[in-house]
Amino acid sequence: MKIIVFGGDGFCGWPTTLGLSKDGHDIVIVDNLSRRLIDEKLDICSLTPISSIEERLKAWKSVSGNRINFHNFNIATEYNKLNKLIEEYKPDAVIQFAEQRAAPYSMRSPDEKRYTIDNNIAATHNILVSLVANKLDCHFVHLGSMGVYGYGTADMKIPEGYLDILIDTESGLKSKSILYPSSPGSIYHLTKSMEQLMFSFYAKNDGIRITDLHQGVVWGTQTDETSLDEKLINRFDYDGDYGTVLNRFLMQSAIGYPLTVHGTGGQTRAFIHINDTVNCIRLALKDITDSNSSKVTIKNQMTETHQVKDLAKLVAQLSGAEIQHLENPRKEDDENDLFVSNDSFIRSGLKPIKLSDSLASEIVDITKKYSHRCDQSKILCKSQW
Amino acid sequence: MKIIVFGGDGFCGWPTTLGLSKDGHDIVIVDNLSRRLIDEKLDICSLTPISSIEERLKAWKSVSGNRINFHNFNIATEYNKLNKLIEEYKPDAVIQFAEQRAAPYSMRSPDEKRYTIDNNIAATHNILVSLVANKLDCHFVHLGSMGVYGYGTADMKIPEGYLDILIDTESGLKSKSILYPSSPGSIYHLTKSMEQLMFSFYAKNDGIRITDLHQGVVWGTQTDETSLDEKLINRFDYDGDYGTVLNRFLMQSAIGYPLTVHGTGGQTRAFIHINDTVNCIRLALKDITDSNSSKVTIKNQMTETHQVKDLAKLVAQLSGAEIQHLENPRKEDDENDLFVSNDSFIRSGLKPIKLSDSLASEIVDITKKYSHRCDQSKILCKSQW
Repeated sequence: MKIIVFGGDGFCGWPTTLGLSKDGHDIVIVDNLSRRLIDEKLDICSLTPISSIEERLKAWKSVSGNRINFHNFNIATEYNKLNKLIEEYKPDAVIQFAEQRAAPYSMRSPDEKRYTIDNNIAATHNILVSLVANKLDCHFVHLGSMGVYGYGTADMKIPEGYLDILIDTESGLKSKSILYPSSPGSIYHLTKSMEQLMFSFYAKNDGIRITDLHQGVVWGTQTDETSLDEKLINRFDYDGDYGTVLNRFLMQSAIGYPLTVHGTGGQTRAFIHINDTVNCIRLALKDITDSNSSKVTIKNQMTETHQVKDLAKLVAQLSGAEIQHLENPRKEDDENDLFVSNDSFIRSGLKPIKLSDSLASEIVDITKKYSHRCDQSKILCKSQW
Repeated sequence: MKIIVFGGDGFCGWPTTLGLSKDGHDIVIVDNLSRRLIDEKLDICSLTPISSIEERLKAWKSVSGNRINFHNFNIATEYNKLNKLIEEYKPDAVIQFAEQRAAPYSMRSPDEKRYTIDNNIAATHNILVSLVANKLDCHFVHLGSMGVYGYGTADMKIPEGYLDILIDTESGLKSKSILYPSSPGSIYHLTKSMEQLMFSFYAKNDGIRITDLHQGVVWGTQTDETSLDEKLINRFDYDGDYGTVLNRFLMQSAIGYPLTVHGTGGQTRAFIHINDTVNCIRLALKDITDSNSSKVTIKNQMTETHQVKDLAKLVAQLSGAEIQHLENPRKEDDENDLFVSNDSFIRSGLKPIKLSDSLASEIVDITKKYSHRCDQSKILCKSQW
């Protein structure tokens, strides 16, 4: 398949690019390197020493023999370049990772709120507009977020995208399937909720085949492909804006910093290992039969759920670290239950990497190994909302 | 009250501005005159001879004694100017009309699709961001659209924004009130649906007091205030992009052109007279008690529903015009029922102007009077979707 990976230099985009290239697909990356620029702006950097995109692609060519083309432009603001590429390359599939993807960053200040809305909405919409304009039969795969569902409850399993409801009408109770009512907890999650409405419109009106993947919190760093050469290493974020909760704990344990739990730690979250992210994208691309062109295919891309305090305990046991409770910067419930259906991917053959099996090696191979690169002043979250 | 009217030079914005100025409010208009620029781009113009904004404001000062300040900038792209104005003026209320508001225009080509999404989303979001940044207790009134609901059905009255549903949970059937699931039929209506999610987030997260008014198709031209002087006259659009169905019929009847009905004309739509639009905004501003700061207040701003073919018959009877059926450019059902709740405004005291009472004078006072200004080549809709 000919595939364009938008945001192919990022945390999920880079390992996905390599995985798909290894499978024999012809891959083009489009990325404006915005994530690296945000590193500079916030004066932070990945714990792992990531190479430049040019070095990465050269190293991949040398270990795999496969060439990946790279275009540096902004798909949110440079529509003509985007449209020319789609018109000429005629992709069979596009994968959209080119979005600002941190909730705390999206809540920092007016600038970041506006950037997150303007960038994410325009980037995704421009791709849709170009696919329609070029009348391509192209599969649009989008990385959504479990955060569109809001927080779970004890009495209902979160379904995959759609909710069956009953409505009281003049002619009695009527059943209907609707998009699960979204309840985003940050501007970042709001963009994923708004994009769902765009997808629904473009699937219905223009028959664009769309798969939206509501992903849980990603942990881990390396995949089978990024481990092949240190120049291919994936990024590992531990800072207050981009570091997700489990990676933050792993980092903290490696440097003898207390594990910082926001609030009671009673929040339950869904998790997935980065290697499984890549495998899910692989499965989503194969799953042509599921792609009904007038209805968006929605899958939950997560493999297990845990309470934050249990994760802290687990990491503490493995590493001997202490646990410290901080005030929660987010407006959210102290405690929530979360049950999630991930039947689609399990049925397609996904064999999840379990947290309990791989956490120890993540500490040894990544956080301990690169702990000398950590800037401790960047660990805590500064955004409050 | 100190009120900023965004888009205060437009079809709904201008009469609202005058109505509120007459009531004694202190009004500031912000408008980048984009609607006038689109006229130039499409080589169309209002049937009624609208004056420049400077002439309009001068004429209003002379008939009313009231001064209205005007700022010409783009709130979607010039955030700093917007924020400075809000910071210094400290409005008690803002009214957001500054959006691209024609469904056919939003579907013309990739450029107009992108403009409609980028402009409408950024404009509305920038206002929200600035209200939060300035910690103002300000009432945000937004013009939504009945089109967010999709098409009606015979067995349910469309409620005002929220739908009561039943969900099958582990602990039995559970009732819940959700935002009515949106089903937009064009990119324009999609923006109104996406904005609903932004409002819901900003009300919940930041306590911004928001009223979203889902308006029907507006007909008519003049209000009590715009009739006071010809220099105050409101715009009347009859072209294929901006002319709404009833105004198009009125125009066609005045020049002896057949009334062009799309499809069977079995589509039922909700209508409201422009004078009632202004009265609804007045009522929405007064209705402080309804403004719960953590939940968006949603009202349906319409007064009657009609099938398009019945409107055509009515206008044909009044004017002797013929009726011509054309292919429908939209993807929509041939026929639909539509029952809409508008209890909020009726309860607040709205006395609707009935179509059956005022249609004849609209033909005489506006379309006949200015029919010499009509460019017949612009009447038909060119967008197909």
